[in-house]
Amino acid sequence: MTTQKIDTILILSGGNSTRFKPLGHKNLFVFNGEPLIEYQLKFYGRYTDNLIVVGNEETQHAIKLYAKTHNARFVLQQGNGQGAAVASAASYIQGSVLIVNGNDLYHEPLLTDLLKKREEHNVDGLLVSVAVRDYIPGGYLLLEDSRVTGVHEKPGADNMPSQYFKLVVDYIADAQKFIAVLMRAQSHNDDLYEVALTEYLSTKNFKNVVYKSDWATLKYPWHILDATSFFLKEVKQHIGSNVRIDPTAVVIGDVYIDDGVQVYEHSKIVGPCYIGKNTIVGNFVLINQSMIGEKSVIGGYSEVTRSYIGDNVWTHRAYIGDSVVEGAANFAAGSVTANYRFDKRDVTCRIKGEKISTQRNKLGLIAGRDIQLGVNSSTMPGVMLSSGSCVQPGDVCSKDM
Amino acid sequence: MTTQKIDTILILSGGNSTRFKPLGHKNLFVFNGEPLIEYQLKFYGRYTDNLIVVGNEETQHAIKLYAKTHNARFVLQQGNGQGAAVASAASYIQGSVLIVNGNDLYHEPLLTDLLKKREEHNVDGLLVSVAVRDYIPGGYLLLEDSRVTGVHEKPGADNMPSQYFKLVVDYIADAQKFIAVLMRAQSHNDDLYEVALTEYLSTKNFKNVVYKSDWATLKYPWHILDATSFFLKEVKQHIGSNVRIDPTAVVIGDVYIDDGVQVYEHSKIVGPCYIGKNTIVGNFVLINQSMIGEKSVIGGYSEVTRSYIGDNVWTHRAYIGDSVVEGAANFAAGSVTANYRFDKRDVTCRIKGEKISTQRNKLGLIAGRDIQLGVNSSTMPGVMLSSGSCVQPGDVCSKDM
Amino acid sequence: MTTQKIDTILILSGGNSTRFKPLGHKNLFVFNGEPLIEYQLKFYGRYTDNLIVVGNEETQHAIKLYAKTHNARFVLQQGNGQGAAVASAASYIQGSVLIVNGNDLYHEPLLTDLLKKREEHNVDGLLVSVAVRDYIPGGYLLLEDSRVTGVHEKPGADNMPSQYFKLVVDYIADAQKFIAVLMRAQSHNDDLYEVALTEYLSTKNFKNVVYKSDWATLKYPWHILDATSFFLKEVKQHIGSNVRIDPTAVVIGDVYIDDGVQVYEHSKIVGPCYIGKNTIVGNFVLINQSMIGEKSVIGGYSEVTRSYIGDNVWTHRAYIGDSVVEGAANFAAGSVTANYRFDKRDVTCRIKGEKISTQRNKLGLIAGRDIQLGVNSSTMPGVMLSSGSCVQPGDVCSKDM
Repeated sequence: MTTQKIDTILILSGGNSTRFKPLGHKNLFVFNGEPLIEYQLKFYGRYTDNLIVVGNEETQHAIKLYAKTHNARFVLQQGNGQGAAVASAASYIQGSVLIVNGNDLYHEPLLTDLLKKREEHNVDGLLVSVAVRDYIPGGYLLLEDSRVTGVHEKPGADNMPSQYFKLVVDYIADAQKFIAVLMRAQSHNDDLYEVALTEYLSTKNFKNVVYKSDWATLKYPWHILDATSFFLKEVKQHIGSNVRIDPTAVVIGDVYIDDGVQVYEHSKIVGPCYIGKNTIVGNFVLINQSMIGEKSVIGGYSEVTRSYIGDNVWTHRAYIGDSVVEGAANFAAGSVTANYRFDKRDVTCRIKGEKISTQRNKLGLIAGRDIQLGVNSSTMPGVMLSSGSCVQPGDVCSKDM
Repeated sequence: MTTQKIDTILILSGGNSTRFKPLGHKNLFVFNGEPLIEYQLKFYGRYTDNLIVVGNEETQHAIKLYAKTHNARFVLQQGNGQGAAVASAASYIQGSVLIVNGNDLYHEPLLTDLLKKREEHNVDGLLVSVAVRDYIPGGYLLLEDSRVTGVHEKPGADNMPSQYFKLVVDYIADAQKFIAVLMRAQSHNDDLYEVALTEYLSTKNFKNVVYKSDWATLKYPWHILDATSFFLKEVKQHIGSNVRIDPTAVVIGDVYIDDGVQVYEHSKIVGPCYIGKNTIVGNFVLINQSMIGEKSVIGGYSEVTRSYIGDNVWTHRAYIGDSVVEGAANFAAGSVTANYRFDKRDVTCRIKGEKISTQRNKLGLIAGRDIQLGVNSSTMPGVMLSSGSCVQPGDVCSKDM
Repeated sequence: MTTQKIDTILILSGGNSTRFKPLGHKNLFVFNGEPLIEYQLKFYGRYTDNLIVVGNEETQHAIKLYAKTHNARFVLQQGNGQGAAVASAASYIQGSVLIVNGNDLYHEPLLTDLLKKREEHNVDGLLVSVAVRDYIPGGYLLLEDSRVTGVHEKPGADNMPSQYFKLVVDYIADAQKFIAVLMRAQSHNDDLYEVALTEYLSTKNFKNVVYKSDWATLKYPWHILDATSFFLKEVKQHIGSNVRIDPTAVVIGDVYIDDGVQVYEHSKIVGPCYIGKNTIVGNFVLINQSMIGEKSVIGGYSEVTRSYIGDNVWTHRAYIGDSVVEGAANFAAGSVTANYRFDKRDVTCRIKGEKISTQRNKLGLIAGRDIQLGVNSSTMPGVMLSSGSCVQPGDVCSKDM
């Protein structure tokens, strides 16, 4: 049986990452050994022969390369917003199109369910949603019988038109008709796309596809932890070549151990975990539900729990919990990332100067590249360190650096 | 053979606990899974059919319940001091009586030796003492031949009438006669009981029973550690139901492991120890000669040595040595209770504003309920934390809170 | 075959140790269970029947005893410098002499190579050198054909007369002739010896013996680490009597474990290591390429890496890396000797008020006797603590004490 295809799939990866600081480009974050963009190219590439990535200037060189490898076309985004992104690629789109956000993560049932629905109904379009119990900010579908008649943006908790929270997975059977509407739309704001879509679907037969598996989105830096959880669910037990696991070490559950990894005496790894190439797990180390990059050294007595650790991160007698460490960091002996407040409240972070709740009860450190924590130093929950920061020995760091 | 009985045994548990702060009520402290008062009710209950507990208002609800369970009578104490306590229960006492302090702990030979002595001599009364080498403050027996002729209160080190330090385990063959003396005694001070006893025994045939096993008394909060040692001596090896002990963990000596306990990889427990129901002992944990309550989590890399830990205490990468933690506490990663002075002197504590020597070379933290130690924080030897205290991350706490 | 002999060997151990503070006398530092001076007496004693140690007042009592044990003569040095040292012993020297520095360490090939060269050439003298790639300050040999014609002191990197860096291992066939030159020499400075040697060899047939094995010299306190590496290379696997090594402990490589040592559960020792008599290695301990003295306790969770630890050193949950701890110290829980700079540069130390590079990328603490590190305290790389120093709990010590 050949896979059903969509004429064009458009991956929107051109947004800027200003709310993602101190971390680098979302699309290039590496999970399970490959950059996010590669996962997306593979995920969607199976369902189209015309895969297009819309990217921005900052990351274009890297993303172009990945796109090429996967026989996808790279288009540089002109202007801001989703509407501008689609418009930038308009000349390469024909027939049916699926428009997805490159920073949103889905598992396999997404497209099989969508394609099945397309068969059944022979519709003009399909919107994908998740059923939510509690209100989260975003767009909600307006439904009449089984038809989607509109999308209500940020209706508020008391005013939800349905429980269907709209994802950015929009299938349109006749792409050029929709693009014509988009080009004519009278908005110069960020909501151009939404305005056009609302207009377009009001006269068409759009259906709702309810997505029922896990998903994650990367908007704020702590969302790397959501993505880590997402990707860890895909991990299968694996032991690469030239791996040395001492017989006294304990490995439990689904742990992917890449080539050249060494696990020393008495250590314990509790899956799901991903341990990147040539990484060393020292003596008396605990790693729990975490992703570790390549050439890192999780040194003696260190503990890494529910965290994302990039490449070339060295730790020694350190505790890293519910934290994101992008890469090339050094955690000296006795350094601790506190991840739980005395008052037990959700941890807050400062984004563009504004304190916002992460809605996480446990959150440790969020650190860009090349950071150092001195001996016996501590970071308070939700602290963010930009690249090159050093927390002095013995210090308690409670403010972003 | 039926056990010999005493007509009435009076457990005096009505004293207040002002010198016991920041800890709660002594009588309700739980050792080896049961409150102290239950131990006393069982210990003495075997030797009488008329067991009476004299208690105070603060704890009466709890103690009444325990008394009822053990077929004992609860009497609310009127007035202060031991004399008032006995007087409060006078109407329920007849025949022979044994008067004991509910905060003093003895092992089994106490009553068998006492009852044997009663047989041999057919005496009017028996006082129990321990032979001490060095002076400790308290009452000492005056002896003429084998007869006790008086009790000398606080004679001082140079003036001890004998080496027999009097315990509060007073047997009187004709209780009502003694009570009559007590009622007439001309003291309105705390020493009413002692005055009456001295008067009474001066004309009677009282004998000395020398107690030769371990005992402990609960006066100051650090005495919980003495009581812990006392009770740990009673511990026998036991593994409850639904217990999981990882094969890589090491359990040595007499360790009581209650139902539902989990012991993770590579941990070590060195008896005597008591581990309460559903408590979790994490990875790389060391527990040594300690008592742990229920539903506690001694988390990864934590070390607990010669300490009392109550229920719901969470520790993570913490060191707790020679310490009392009443319950519901949180010890964050890197927190340490220092238990040994640089100058190697005995540790001092502040009781009612006064600095007194604990006569302990090693003493860590004494903590009431709901305390928190932040990451990489430390407490100095002998520090006392009242309920709800938080030691901030990285701080060195050298004063009581 | 009888060993060839030299008529007299002169060990110069009379220099003062002012640049060696805060550490004690170099000659009495214990490596592999014996003081440095004993190693030298044994090393050179095999090659002469007239072994002489020139020492100073401070250490004479101890060194005299060791000399006596090894049938060597002790001579008290009069005046300063190497020339004065040789002159002090002049009346005991006859025939051939080998003059060596008691603070320089060599392996066996030194003397066998030298004696072989003596046979082959029937020379007036032999100087020993090492071939260096990069310039280090000191004397370099001037060679004409195979004859040594002079020694150029501190020529500078651009002006090296040869690659042969002169060691202090000087063989002179006719000692008294050389001493006569020394006595007449017109220098009253420290370089008297060098002046006389240069004059002497200018008219004689001196040859160069190139030493090709490891060597170490003790000038600055961190050189104890070089000496430790030197002596660890001599260590062979050994387990003494009354040793207890728990089956869960891991011992790898050449580890000398002396009598009465105990190694507790789950610990790991990676050779080369030397563990002195009756020392205890607690639970979850890591010892790596280090030398530990007698009666020390490397307590639970401690880690000792590439360090020299003397007798009676107690550590608990401490990290000691690239450090020298002379003896009788206490490292409390959470104490850390930082050994690596944030800026990754070589560590500097202060010697006589002057900051000098140790040319070591990793260097921790250098500590005299009876020092204490409080709980959760830290020392910065290259800090030196004099005897009796205490680093307060929680402090970060970045200055010498």
